[in-house]
Amino acid sequence: MELTARKLLTVVTEAALEDTLMRDMEALGARGYTITDARGKGGKANATPPGHHTPIFALKVLCGADTALAICAALRERYSDNYSMVMYVGDVDVLRPEKF
Amino acid sequence: MELTARKLLTVVTEAALEDTLMRDMEALGARGYTITDARGKGGKANATPPGHHTPIFALKVLCGADTALAICAALRERYSDNYSMVMYVGDVDVLRPEKF
Amino acid sequence: MELTARKLLTVVTEAALEDTLMRDMEALGARGYTITDARGKGGKANATPPGHHTPIFALKVLCGADTALAICAALRERYSDNYSMVMYVGDVDVLRPEKF
Repeated sequence: MELTARKLLTVVTEAALEDTLMRDMEALGARGYTITDARGKGGKANATPPGHHTPIFALKVLCGADTALAICAALRERYSDNYSMVMYVGDVDVLRPEKF
Repeated sequence: MELTARKLLTVVTEAALEDTLMRDMEALGARGYTITDARGKGGKANATPPGHHTPIFALKVLCGADTALAICAALRERYSDNYSMVMYVGDVDVLRPEKF
Repeated sequence: MELTARKLLTVVTEAALEDTLMRDMEALGARGYTITDARGKGGKANATPPGHHTPIFALKVLCGADTALAICAALRERYSDNYSMVMYVGDVDVLRPEKF
């Protein structure tokens, strides 16, 4: 069974951006993505009162290194001034890499 | 404190497969797993109308490299023809590796 | 665009510990965290009847290697005797590392 190296990009940001980011993903070359609801604290969300959490979500994209960097650059330019947004990239081995 | 290398296998697939996969995990040697609800787009799920998402889930298993590959091979053979299924494997360091 | 290496620490534990862990995170030097609800099986949770799952959550923290180890050590000492708790650490590249 063949596994192939890909990047796993995770974007954690505010719930209000979900529809916008979904459109961005397709335009930026992501072949698919997964979204999970979350809650948390950090960055601009630190302004929330104790015991309250900003509704956020984590979007994950499997892609090549170039696509991961292109998505990071585009999202940072478009949204990071006005929204809490954390992005990080890890290495994974993927089955059926032709899909990504 | 000792950390030991293990694999973190993630399987993202359709909600309908959850009970089946839980049974598979035990039979295939996974000592434990975590399931998170998600939504997403990609592969066969691309057939869904715009604005709609297939209900999916992400199953995560900490295990050795051999077990990770055995699970990937079994799931691919059993389900990948009929279900959207994405599998990827990453490297992590784990506390108390004797549990996995 | 500059990406910088950081650790991604994941703690999977019982829902009852959420408020306690949130307080711990700030005291232990985490600048932010993300929490996702989950369900699963493994360790002490194996005592649950078939078809039932312990409500758990996954807490993720981006931080330096020293902070990751300090958090692991503190949580293991405080909670691992009495709660199901799994911790693992992976490598990621992060945008805007000054935040973590």
